Amino acid sequence: MESPLILINLKTYKEGIGDRAHRIAAAAETVSAESGVTIGIAPSFMEIHPLSRHYAIPVYAQHIDGISPGTGTGHILPEAVKLAGAHGTLINHSERRLTLADIEAAVSAAKRVRLETVVCTNNVPTSAAAAALSPDYVAIEPPELIGSGVSVSKADPGIIENSVAAVRKVHDGVKVLTGAGIQSGECVKIALDLGTHGVLLASSVVKADDPEKVLRELVSLL
Amino acid sequence: MESPLILINLKTYKEGIGDRAHRIAAAAETVSAESGVTIGIAPSFMEIHPLSRHYAIPVYAQHIDGISPGTGTGHILPEAVKLAGAHGTLINHSERRLTLADIEAAVSAAKRVRLETVVCTNNVPTSAAAAALSPDYVAIEPPELIGSGVSVSKADPGIIENSVAAVRKVHDGVKVLTGAGIQSGECVKIALDLGTHGVLLASSVVKADDPEKVLRELVSLL
Amino acid sequence: MESPLILINLKTYKEGIGDRAHRIAAAAETVSAESGVTIGIAPSFMEIHPLSRHYAIPVYAQHIDGISPGTGTGHILPEAVKLAGAHGTLINHSERRLTLADIEAAVSAAKRVRLETVVCTNNVPTSAAAAALSPDYVAIEPPELIGSGVSVSKADPGIIENSVAAVRKVHDGVKVLTGAGIQSGECVKIALDLGTHGVLLASSVVKADDPEKVLRELVSLL
Amino acid sequence: MESPLILINLKTYKEGIGDRAHRIAAAAETVSAESGVTIGIAPSFMEIHPLSRHYAIPVYAQHIDGISPGTGTGHILPEAVKLAGAHGTLINHSERRLTLADIEAAVSAAKRVRLETVVCTNNVPTSAAAAALSPDYVAIEPPELIGSGVSVSKADPGIIENSVAAVRKVHDGVKVLTGAGIQSGECVKIALDLGTHGVLLASSVVKADDPEKVLRELVSLL
Repeated sequence: MESPLILINLKTYKEGIGDRAHRIAAAAETVSAESGVTIGIAPSFMEIHPLSRHYAIPVYAQHIDGISPGTGTGHILPEAVKLAGAHGTLINHSERRLTLADIEAAVSAAKRVRLETVVCTNNVPTSAAAAALSPDYVAIEPPELIGSGVSVSKADPGIIENSVAAVRKVHDGVKVLTGAGIQSGECVKIALDLGTHGVLLASSVVKADDPEKVLRELVSLL
Repeated sequence: MESPLILINLKTYKEGIGDRAHRIAAAAETVSAESGVTIGIAPSFMEIHPLSRHYAIPVYAQHIDGISPGTGTGHILPEAVKLAGAHGTLINHSERRLTLADIEAAVSAAKRVRLETVVCTNNVPTSAAAAALSPDYVAIEPPELIGSGVSVSKADPGIIENSVAAVRKVHDGVKVLTGAGIQSGECVKIALDLGTHGVLLASSVVKADDPEKVLRELVSLL
Repeated sequence: MESPLILINLKTYKEGIGDRAHRIAAAAETVSAESGVTIGIAPSFMEIHPLSRHYAIPVYAQHIDGISPGTGTGHILPEAVKLAGAHGTLINHSERRLTLADIEAAVSAAKRVRLETVVCTNNVPTSAAAAALSPDYVAIEPPELIGSGVSVSKADPGIIENSVAAVRKVHDGVKVLTGAGIQSGECVKIALDLGTHGVLLASSVVKADDPEKVLRELVSLL
Repeated sequence: MESPLILINLKTYKEGIGDRAHRIAAAAETVSAESGVTIGIAPSFMEIHPLSRHYAIPVYAQHIDGISPGTGTGHILPEAVKLAGAHGTLINHSERRLTLADIEAAVSAAKRVRLETVVCTNNVPTSAAAAALSPDYVAIEPPELIGSGVSVSKADPGIIENSVAAVRKVHDGVKVLTGAGIQSGECVKIALDLGTHGVLLASSVVKADDPEKVLRELVSLL
């Protein structure tokens, strides 16, 4: 059986750049090796190259543009992300929303260069819509839970269950991540029990004094 | 059986503002009364109020924002569009793309105030995605045909057939419009034969010397 | 000497649409006639046409796009705003920000059709930058004061004085409006004493139980 | 006297990523050492880290966001760009336009972390506006010349002269780059003779079979 995915989004936290990005990546590598659980990391674009060379974990871009090589100054070319060593990419994160046409173009472009795709969504209908674009994952981030300190699994398991059902109805090959409100190993276990294939999280790991300890606790019930 | 919908987008053509918007609306009213075919018009926001008061045809906004009343200077409040007399609205036109989250919010807001919704899309996957949001219509506008003078029905009937099939698979209550490449009554007939419920068109009517004559020809085979 | 300008932005407040827009416009017309002070109103796009026909006050769009007639579905064509009866337009309001290139294009397009321009800005450097584009007015809206209930004139007269000085240095033909934190006639008087040519305000008039009374108080010290 | 700046924008050209970025950087380093002319390079975000470590030339980001550390997934944090080794950054390139407020925030943020700033503009008024924000450079890119193969210096020296004059009038400490239409060493010389402090160019170097030869020719008349 495939391992669940624990995906750590470093955002633009000051605790997630430079040496501190390396510290989190090293922690992820250690805990992943111990536990057998896949732990990925989504750093700033500038860290994709060094982190993917130094650590045996999958590295994700935080965003790509659905463009072809050419005149895209300041934009994120999927080919350049792939060349830098990335394994996959977030698309349409709540902090970097795209038009529907651009999400579709980004998913298509990622497939062209073999980047795994994680499309972020905010509710049940948008999760179903994202599934129609055939990404590898849909990550459902209920806006009321982002950064709230409340566990999505406990607060409103219905939105997760309904998203999983809606995604399966549209395209049953698309996996789902629980994308907000993950605080503990128990949250991770509940997220998987609700039918999702992993979690997308950020501050609870990135801002931790001891990321390795937090990661070890997060995978403890798997 | 429900009438097909012929929806005329006036865009920001100089031939579609002020008195000239009235001329097109009058032509639509005349031909609709003669033929029994529903002919709608999507003028500039400023013309929604006068046109919906003067002509017995459905008037559509060209765009709405999925917002609630409040601090949205320069944005399009669904309640204000409804109060001005609109029957429905385009959402996510190729010239006014929205994020997936905003399309969903706009469809929900339109339902709240009972505006009919026409979500525009650019290919088969985005049409399926739009259907997951439960609008009244999805209007498929293949980018290679917009304003090209080539009939979508003749050039590539496959994209229409596949979009109809993809939309039905996701949500069979959603109707489809053929949204580009409509030049003649024969195009309209082919569009309906391919399973769509009407057409979205612009320049062929708006820029015509005699819009009434063009409209009469467009509905001639229905 | 030219009258100061009191410009009321109706935003998308529920108190500013439909019949309630007429009520505020009527109050503005009455108080303007009594006092000799110019009172303008910026309603939704749908209300530009009816309000500019019914009331002897200048009506402003809340936004325009710097486009020429053509394929701009869902966008705001300056020619259409002018035809609907508008006297001027806001550009780059804090709730509808534009790129620098688009602000310049909008100011140029507005001049082409003879719409008065009010470019909104958020601090001293952006006020100076906006002045370089030669609009009729720059309206400085310090973000910390928007909707705060605190008077800009009292809280931080420095930002107003510095903006006036910076604008004059770049282009001394450009007038300045105080664009946030206006609560009372005393605020209006202080705004003018600081060298600005009027005020841009919203909730204090739009949400008032008696807009006429509030407007009468606002102009009472002029 | 300060050296002029030759700034090479790699855009998202396929000839400007991975090994090919290194090839161009190596050519720039060689020709800069030979000639004493400062030659900078603006690669993809992913290449900032490796290129700034391997070559003795200034590396520029193609864009930054005017944000502080925190929740900016998919955005470009100035601190992260600086940590990766960048010397400076483009801001508001014609392919990555920003709002006026965001340009100002990006210039301020770049100063906070000591990144040199090059704000791109499209005509005389926007160049004057950009100068009011006190960047290190304004790079004027007339849209009609971008990628046209026509030399800006020959085609319309007036726009360069007028931009230099307008920038000096607003803020005489701001330097100007000629940002389009640079094909040859003669173009570079004319650009400097018109009062600009260097050039911003892209395809003529990036797509060259022999970038070193092209660069050597570009600096040959300095």
